[in-house]
Amino acid sequence: MKDRLIALLTDFDLKDSYVGVMKGVINYINPRARVVDVTHGVTPQDVIQGAFILEKTFAYFPANTIFVAVIDPGVGSSRKALAVQTDRCFFIAPDNGLISPALEKMKIVRMVEIKTPDYILYPPSNTFHGRDIFAPAAAHLSTGLSIEKLGPVVDDYQKLEIFHPEIEGKLIRGKVIFADHFGNLITNVNAKLLRGREIKKIVIDRYEIDGITQFYQESQGRELMGIIGSYDTLEISISMGSAREFVGPPVNREVEVHLAPPE
Amino acid sequence: MKDRLIALLTDFDLKDSYVGVMKGVINYINPRARVVDVTHGVTPQDVIQGAFILEKTFAYFPANTIFVAVIDPGVGSSRKALAVQTDRCFFIAPDNGLISPALEKMKIVRMVEIKTPDYILYPPSNTFHGRDIFAPAAAHLSTGLSIEKLGPVVDDYQKLEIFHPEIEGKLIRGKVIFADHFGNLITNVNAKLLRGREIKKIVIDRYEIDGITQFYQESQGRELMGIIGSYDTLEISISMGSAREFVGPPVNREVEVHLAPPE
Amino acid sequence: MKDRLIALLTDFDLKDSYVGVMKGVINYINPRARVVDVTHGVTPQDVIQGAFILEKTFAYFPANTIFVAVIDPGVGSSRKALAVQTDRCFFIAPDNGLISPALEKMKIVRMVEIKTPDYILYPPSNTFHGRDIFAPAAAHLSTGLSIEKLGPVVDDYQKLEIFHPEIEGKLIRGKVIFADHFGNLITNVNAKLLRGREIKKIVIDRYEIDGITQFYQESQGRELMGIIGSYDTLEISISMGSAREFVGPPVNREVEVHLAPPE
Repeated sequence: MKDRLIALLTDFDLKDSYVGVMKGVINYINPRARVVDVTHGVTPQDVIQGAFILEKTFAYFPANTIFVAVIDPGVGSSRKALAVQTDRCFFIAPDNGLISPALEKMKIVRMVEIKTPDYILYPPSNTFHGRDIFAPAAAHLSTGLSIEKLGPVVDDYQKLEIFHPEIEGKLIRGKVIFADHFGNLITNVNAKLLRGREIKKIVIDRYEIDGITQFYQESQGRELMGIIGSYDTLEISISMGSAREFVGPPVNREVEVHLAPPE
Repeated sequence: MKDRLIALLTDFDLKDSYVGVMKGVINYINPRARVVDVTHGVTPQDVIQGAFILEKTFAYFPANTIFVAVIDPGVGSSRKALAVQTDRCFFIAPDNGLISPALEKMKIVRMVEIKTPDYILYPPSNTFHGRDIFAPAAAHLSTGLSIEKLGPVVDDYQKLEIFHPEIEGKLIRGKVIFADHFGNLITNVNAKLLRGREIKKIVIDRYEIDGITQFYQESQGRELMGIIGSYDTLEISISMGSAREFVGPPVNREVEVHLAPPE
Repeated sequence: MKDRLIALLTDFDLKDSYVGVMKGVINYINPRARVVDVTHGVTPQDVIQGAFILEKTFAYFPANTIFVAVIDPGVGSSRKALAVQTDRCFFIAPDNGLISPALEKMKIVRMVEIKTPDYILYPPSNTFHGRDIFAPAAAHLSTGLSIEKLGPVVDDYQKLEIFHPEIEGKLIRGKVIFADHFGNLITNVNAKLLRGREIKKIVIDRYEIDGITQFYQESQGRELMGIIGSYDTLEISISMGSAREFVGPPVNREVEVHLAPPE
């Protein structure tokens, strides 16, 4: 049987050696480890963006994947280091809300604070728990270690003030969470809020968009369109161009979707 | 026996989770999968750059490698999703010309349109066939699946209007395809056009270069040089500097090579 | 038994296919190869930055890891291609000082110049020894090949003019080696020079910092702090901000640490 897959999600970027060192540590502990990068391109310290991506992507990974999520402005402070086993997978992360939207979608089996010195690079630094605490915990779990060995059970975890859109009758007020590499503006308006509904218009900044486009090239001009994107949410895009450049700074920008009455 | 290697080439960048999710899907389907990134740094939607890189690099990968090439401005439209087996390797890509220069260098054994619902994440999205169609097809092929299981045979594929230089007697008119990370201007003038020939001058923009330099440090000053580069084509470079910054926007910029008469 | 781990450190970036092609070559030669990226984000041609990172990170990788370090402005010139076996690990690199700080921390068992045509992609290019010489050597070593097969023994290697800080009584004069992705200024002032000492002040540019901060969030305002960072050296940082943007261009900027007299 293969060891559990380890999937890394951080804001470390790949410019530095931080991610490489985490993989060194993982291979040190478990030479058979299989490691995949979800992304290391989360905007520095943007816990909300990281939480959004984790919640939208975990289901594409195998059962029992160990997600190591490190967006950790509080590293070295008293915030806990968590390891969580659910009915679907594992999470290893700082207790700052980063994993809470994903956890809401599954059943927690066991949650511990990572404290056992045997499973930590000792003494841990105050700046790099990805290397000293999170990577070692993941490597040990990947070999089949029981999660309760990592430390004492904890009962609760930080919830993220969540980014669900507000719904007022036929008006949905959402937000842009981030812009992707192509300049698509990724919003928090879930596709299921829109399916089967007629959309009168989408409003972002001073622009109005008529309804939903089915695929990028349906729009040939350089004009804004609304599309159900790769995170299964509403995305504001420009075919062969960048909506980010067109509209301006993305984060927290409001998006209104005006629905027609249901038939 | 090891499973077939999967090699990914996209314009997705690594900032987002798109590549990570493709690897999640691949590991979901085949936990033994071996995956290598050719690059994810192709300029967004630049099918020609992607085709150039694929054609210049495939030979450095093992026989039977499955190349998953996704530069796909037409995602969600009626363009086909292709899987191709050749006498050398496999390709999985949108039918937009991206794989055509590489295919010209080998013999096609079988070519199908990926359509079988069993081998697709169903229903596929309209924005992310890398995740829903191309990655699953690659993962299944990597385990040894016969390519004809993926869908019906197709007879033809989109050819890319190719980027061979024009040759007029002793004048070669080429183009810059892209600039690499070091600022080297990568041209489409194949080394074999130049080998054994005396070069009178190379002209790019308003600059004239005298002949070919053998290695970067041969030129110590900050001046342009022509060199046979890592794609086995003419490259315009500056030692310890960036030709891109010196010359300006690279794509499609003309390069003339003036040959001396053969002896 | 698992093959030796291969760890890559270059200034190639991931925008291009250079790293991907190296991995293709490695998999071509050894289909069982395990490859990890230390980083490919070293500033182009910055041998000192690369040497610093290698020296600070090798200990986090398994014993017998094969480090392939390619920051190689002299590629194609007469500089040697080295393969080194130590009591700790292996190094494959150009002979330009890149591996010398790491080598000072271990015992060299055997050092050869990579020359045997059987273990080179023949004929090697003049621009890409990462692909033609270093990757093949690593792949062959990873299978257990004896290092002396790669070429003749050499007795000496290029030393890097090292970046140790100057110490004058209670004054330490160090330098910023580079800025990381978060804008932290990474200096060459090793933590061991500071441990157990009282620090009167840290001076960088026109700024004075009072002593050492224990973790990033200890400082809530947007002010400079000194902290023992992830390379176990003094780091100049701003909590939730970028010291690089605050202070300006990082490389070679002087940092003074004024110690109080020992008790």
